[in-house]
Amino acid sequence: MSARKTVGILGGGQLGRMLTHPAALLGIPLLILDSGEYTPAKQTLLPPQFTSHPDGPFTSESHIRELAKQCDVLTVEIEHVNADVLEAVEKEGLCEVQPSPGTIRLIQDKYLQKKYLADRGIPVAPFQVLSANPTEEDVKSVASQLGLPVMLKARTLAYDGRGNSPLQTTESGDIAKSLKHLGDRPLYAEGWAPFVKEVAVMVVRNKQGEVRSYDAVETVHRDSILRVCLAPLRASGKGMEGVNSRARELAEKAVATLEGAGIFGVEMFLMADGSLLLNEIAPRPHNSGHHTIEACNTSQFENHLRAILSLPLGSTALRVPSAAMINILGVDGEMAPVLAMADSALPVPGATSHLYGKAESRKARKMGHITLTASSDAELRLGLRTILKAQPDLDDTFIDTHAPPPPERSHSHKQPLVGIIMGSDSDLPVMLPATKILEQFGIPYELTLTSAHRTPARMTEYAHSAVSRGLRCIIAGAGGAAHLPGMVASETALPVIGVPVKASVLDGVDSLYSILQMPRGCPTATVGINNSTNAALLAVRILGTSIPSLAVAMEKYQHDLADEVLAKCETLEEEGWEKYVQRLKK
Amino acid sequence: MSARKTVGILGGGQLGRMLTHPAALLGIPLLILDSGEYTPAKQTLLPPQFTSHPDGPFTSESHIRELAKQCDVLTVEIEHVNADVLEAVEKEGLCEVQPSPGTIRLIQDKYLQKKYLADRGIPVAPFQVLSANPTEEDVKSVASQLGLPVMLKARTLAYDGRGNSPLQTTESGDIAKSLKHLGDRPLYAEGWAPFVKEVAVMVVRNKQGEVRSYDAVETVHRDSILRVCLAPLRASGKGMEGVNSRARELAEKAVATLEGAGIFGVEMFLMADGSLLLNEIAPRPHNSGHHTIEACNTSQFENHLRAILSLPLGSTALRVPSAAMINILGVDGEMAPVLAMADSALPVPGATSHLYGKAESRKARKMGHITLTASSDAELRLGLRTILKAQPDLDDTFIDTHAPPPPERSHSHKQPLVGIIMGSDSDLPVMLPATKILEQFGIPYELTLTSAHRTPARMTEYAHSAVSRGLRCIIAGAGGAAHLPGMVASETALPVIGVPVKASVLDGVDSLYSILQMPRGCPTATVGINNSTNAALLAVRILGTSIPSLAVAMEKYQHDLADEVLAKCETLEEEGWEKYVQRLKK
Repeated sequence: MSARKTVGILGGGQLGRMLTHPAALLGIPLLILDSGEYTPAKQTLLPPQFTSHPDGPFTSESHIRELAKQCDVLTVEIEHVNADVLEAVEKEGLCEVQPSPGTIRLIQDKYLQKKYLADRGIPVAPFQVLSANPTEEDVKSVASQLGLPVMLKARTLAYDGRGNSPLQTTESGDIAKSLKHLGDRPLYAEGWAPFVKEVAVMVVRNKQGEVRSYDAVETVHRDSILRVCLAPLRASGKGMEGVNSRARELAEKAVATLEGAGIFGVEMFLMADGSLLLNEIAPRPHNSGHHTIEACNTSQFENHLRAILSLPLGSTALRVPSAAMINILGVDGEMAPVLAMADSALPVPGATSHLYGKAESRKARKMGHITLTASSDAELRLGLRTILKAQPDLDDTFIDTHAPPPPERSHSHKQPLVGIIMGSDSDLPVMLPATKILEQFGIPYELTLTSAHRTPARMTEYAHSAVSRGLRCIIAGAGGAAHLPGMVASETALPVIGVPVKASVLDGVDSLYSILQMPRGCPTATVGINNSTNAALLAVRILGTSIPSLAVAMEKYQHDLADEVLAKCETLEEEGWEKYVQRLKK
Repeated sequence: MSARKTVGILGGGQLGRMLTHPAALLGIPLLILDSGEYTPAKQTLLPPQFTSHPDGPFTSESHIRELAKQCDVLTVEIEHVNADVLEAVEKEGLCEVQPSPGTIRLIQDKYLQKKYLADRGIPVAPFQVLSANPTEEDVKSVASQLGLPVMLKARTLAYDGRGNSPLQTTESGDIAKSLKHLGDRPLYAEGWAPFVKEVAVMVVRNKQGEVRSYDAVETVHRDSILRVCLAPLRASGKGMEGVNSRARELAEKAVATLEGAGIFGVEMFLMADGSLLLNEIAPRPHNSGHHTIEACNTSQFENHLRAILSLPLGSTALRVPSAAMINILGVDGEMAPVLAMADSALPVPGATSHLYGKAESRKARKMGHITLTASSDAELRLGLRTILKAQPDLDDTFIDTHAPPPPERSHSHKQPLVGIIMGSDSDLPVMLPATKILEQFGIPYELTLTSAHRTPARMTEYAHSAVSRGLRCIIAGAGGAAHLPGMVASETALPVIGVPVKASVLDGVDSLYSILQMPRGCPTATVGINNSTNAALLAVRILGTSIPSLAVAMEKYQHDLADEVLAKCETLEEEGWEKYVQRLKK
């Protein structure tokens, strides 16, 4: 496959390792520069034309120059590289470097990165540079400008939270402790961003500046290390509409301002009002995009290779409705607990374990990860719960927050697929049969009250947030004027099933017409008067179009209905119709 | 990861190569026995405890014994191995062998395999053994028993059709030619199976005899080599109901009769009446299961490793609604056309190219494959068309058959997601607005007539085959007694949307009640009288639950509706309502 350009990678860890698989599939020769003969990335692929991967530090000028001579394009799996050497290598025409050394240098300094983005209109938390070897007064001065608490941050060589120190007060002792913790690196300060969720978006950019983003994900950190990642991003409440698209647009806009080709990981804060602040960008594959291997059309790793080699960018679309990534962190020096965590995923449908082949385990070292894909959020959280329970560092509070247990009987599910709503609790007797059917089919649902006339704002918010909360169908019951189903259908793109409730007059015909006779443009799916059973069965059929097991269950339900009638025929035959009718009357 | 058992593989081709990736993810050390230092499987992984893969023929007793000493479990990626040596190795306690050498030996002899299966009640085409060095009379005798045409087949060492010779007549010349073609191998004869499709099912079996099948696929051969594979199996017409489940049950039953653990590829013929005949079984990963890497929860390769190592079997469920696999066959000795075929897939959303790293290309040699996943059959065929057009050996007839072009205007799509049906062509004016909406959203649909009262059998067959044809929703229009929507809903598990058509009397209220007031157990989704526009919009919303781009398009449609009204408000404001109404009247 000599028609492909040879790619050199600075860094031989797990990110490099995950680049080797798509490289093998595409026939791209890869050379990995790192110290050691058997790093994670060096275990998995060696192009036939080379006898070994180069052995040496990925920051060493001589090794980089040697590698550059053997390659057509150099890239990085870590940003803490020697940008000056990369720039020289490119200027001298030894080899192309992607992303551009200038972008890598910019990103290496978190303060310059933030300033660059802020200057280009990207929203970030307020920040302020600190002078070299800052005094207590310097810190007090930025704290008074940015407010307390304030985050002191190392400008360089910071990752997994190791260069951050939050400051709650401006007492001398606290300031001295923070400055000591951060050492003598250059620092800057950042105002507190009281986020409700952390969010990340992977963006691939080619040399022509075309950018494509993946769906936004929620990233859950613990002790400043990414622990769990949930795709796509879900959010509920006022201001959260379209948060996934807004996060993607922001990430694309930020990456579009940078130079060079490759994949970029964009980390953001989601604030309580639904607004987004950009936190930082990584110029390489990122832990928050590992799920893309199984969950997306083209993985972040393959898209990185495509981008730096000017091959067509791949589709970033999710292949599945729901996905999660769970990092496998070392517990101690032993390999056995690592293997046990990986194996906890084996019985979980849709889970794939990825071990990184690291020779040694250490506490909190990233030893592997697990990807989980599912046909719904509820199914995802169920599998996630099994996997999280096998992680020794996680307590019940963490597990219950991110993978709650199934709800108690007659309570709403936290990840519902169907919402059952009605304007008044007097509709409950008519609507409850729907819950029976959904329970019979194992479908997660929620049930609540919202009225078109008494709580119009609540109704609108419910309808607007339905998609971003993961709902796929709404059943709305209403009587009399019966505006609820149609009004909700007008405020969401989901299918809305209307149940006409028989009110005190007109036998429900008023409700029926009000729900059914919607104007062209905005449909409701109407079922028979008071027939919430059929509404739920219709919801099952609708969900069956995306969850094949439900389609199979519906076929069985229909067969069972037929069998029931056939059994009645037998009884009729056996005991005669007179006796049959008498028994019915009892 | 020394807690894992070491696996030895006989054979170092692409099947072995595709085993190495899940092995790396699970931390399983693999050793590959094959001649050559750089076969496809040897390029990708070498466990740290070994310095090289063994080099030698995978049929050599001494090499197998040497490998067995280094491994815990031996397995095969090709069935043409030395079963006697494997049996001895296992008996002597050198190493476990999976699947069992007895199973491999049985499968190596196609006649014994067929007899074994037939004896256990598995349906196969009629067959008859031939004596060693058969005479013309011997062949005439089996031909008279099995009928013409008859297939003469080599019992051993046959693959990709190389051991098959069809006989159309019993003329001396033809018989002599066939026997010469087959050489002096032991032979048997098989009655002709006039299949409508070839079908395959992958089945994984663990040591305890648990079997799990993948969804059935359609396999398309050309010159006896697998060319395209389509998942899941689609079939239409009488007798084809439930064909996917029936194929899976048959394959599971067959594999359950065999001994040992591992993945098995089961090839079948689908006959015109919907019945299935088992053709043959491969005791290893199979070309008809390559799509499982991207398209299923756990790939055939990972499940093979799990099975032979007694790890929990993984879920075989499809992750996506639709998938295809296209083999990349060598054109000549050049690598450039191979690369060009792989690259034809890069711009296609959902396509992944897999090159096998073979050092040399040859005509019709399997050099790689492309997997394509899609959210619908129609989207799949669209991408497939692009990919097939880049395969130099395929003509337009082949391409048009398996990846038809989009239909001409106002003709039905070959892979519809929505079926629009009505009892009479007099309903066409009411139902046609639905086609406009579906076209606007780019949704493939079909439109046809079927009447509950005039063509009840046709209606039933339509409803029964809807799922296996890939439909996800049916829109049925009916007037008066209006039985069609409800009757169709009773015969399918799909959501059925009913459009009450206004007949000559009663203003459509008769149709409305007849469609809406279905008994508990069998719902229709009813829309307003004559409002097929809303029926189609409801279908879009339903499809949007499985095709995210449609949900986005629906949101845009709703915004556009709002904008339209806002524009009218502006006009009203500008020109005043008197002028506005006068303009409306024109």
